[in-house]
Amino acid sequence: MGTDHETPARPAVVLLSGGLDSMVTAAMAQRAGFQINALTINYGQRHSIELQAARRIAAHLGVSRHVELALDLSVFGGSALTDDIDVPIGGVVADIPVTYVPARNLVFLSLTLAWAETLGASDIFIGVNALDYSGYPDCRPEFIASFAETARLGTKAGAEGQVLTIHAPLQYMSKADIAAESSRLGLDPGMSWSCYNPTEHGQACGLCDSCRLRQKGFADAALQDGIEYANTAH
Amino acid sequence: MGTDHETPARPAVVLLSGGLDSMVTAAMAQRAGFQINALTINYGQRHSIELQAARRIAAHLGVSRHVELALDLSVFGGSALTDDIDVPIGGVVADIPVTYVPARNLVFLSLTLAWAETLGASDIFIGVNALDYSGYPDCRPEFIASFAETARLGTKAGAEGQVLTIHAPLQYMSKADIAAESSRLGLDPGMSWSCYNPTEHGQACGLCDSCRLRQKGFADAALQDGIEYANTAH
Repeated sequence: MGTDHETPARPAVVLLSGGLDSMVTAAMAQRAGFQINALTINYGQRHSIELQAARRIAAHLGVSRHVELALDLSVFGGSALTDDIDVPIGGVVADIPVTYVPARNLVFLSLTLAWAETLGASDIFIGVNALDYSGYPDCRPEFIASFAETARLGTKAGAEGQVLTIHAPLQYMSKADIAAESSRLGLDPGMSWSCYNPTEHGQACGLCDSCRLRQKGFADAALQDGIEYANTAH
Repeated sequence: MGTDHETPARPAVVLLSGGLDSMVTAAMAQRAGFQINALTINYGQRHSIELQAARRIAAHLGVSRHVELALDLSVFGGSALTDDIDVPIGGVVADIPVTYVPARNLVFLSLTLAWAETLGASDIFIGVNALDYSGYPDCRPEFIASFAETARLGTKAGAEGQVLTIHAPLQYMSKADIAAESSRLGLDPGMSWSCYNPTEHGQACGLCDSCRLRQKGFADAALQDGIEYANTAH
């Protein structure tokens, strides 16, 4: 008896943006028994609020290690999240929005893999979501599966036969499911940050895609969000 | 007649490390009619000589744009090229060497793709080589092919049907072939830098894997290298 407690936790690398999805993903990985190495990539976001949220979440979970990696994607331009393009506030649309950051999840997963390989970790967690998302191609399950195969071919660990698993536990969950899971895991959603376009007073705008999806998720789950919104979308 | 000259050059992004292979690759891309956008990733190398070489090559070729992106992979540790591990000087071995940087080409290709997508470029050039290389898994053709598929699935451009081509023109060339191609393209090989372990006086060591492969290549091609070596391997 009790052998589970004596087994050292296996290391996993978790992409921790500071958003609700990554917070819930990290807590799920921890609940599943992994030792959490959290990677936050500071890619020239216009707001540091997300980074502060990542630090709060890492501290709350008591992660093994939290690395913040600076990567200035704004040298390439091309996205409302790194450039001076206005974030749209008119509602979620069918097209890929201007907030799409070119190849972001591919870049981020690659960096996560670099750390995982260094740690000898064969598990990576990412909070992508294929349902209530903004239409980003790099959130699709077929992209994640293809990345795992490329990672196998492109790493020493893979070449030596190690099986790498890319966990995307939120893949098929709705935002309401994610809000409910956050509550089940005893997380304060107010620790996380989702807004693309905070006010100068540090409030969530309530109108960008990310705020709209989050507000609807908590409303559908009949749960409190914990975030103060400057506006409420209808 | 002369319509070829009037067609605006198509943009391509070329990974330019400053080594011989990337120099030849960039010049081949330019010769093929592409407008060159050169990306050099400063990933916490211990030596800035390679970066200076990249700048010399970019200036010589008159590239459209040269971006140097800082990415401190040493936060992850794990490689003689970013850590304080000694670079091996005993000769090329069958194993994957300690100079392997975890997931390096996957990270670098992902960043290249991010820029390519921003530019609207559908061509990427990388100087990987599957023959006279050091046994890195991320130089293998099957890795490059898998990356192209992952890139298609993970980008807006790919989702919208744009065909991305990853050019690896040196893939099946020997180092002697590459040395000969450098000469054919009128390049001074002394502009490039390959050594992992330069002396304090800025000479190439002549003993690391990279120096050994390069010296043998120029010797086999019966061409002058243009690099001053502190030692000559036999």
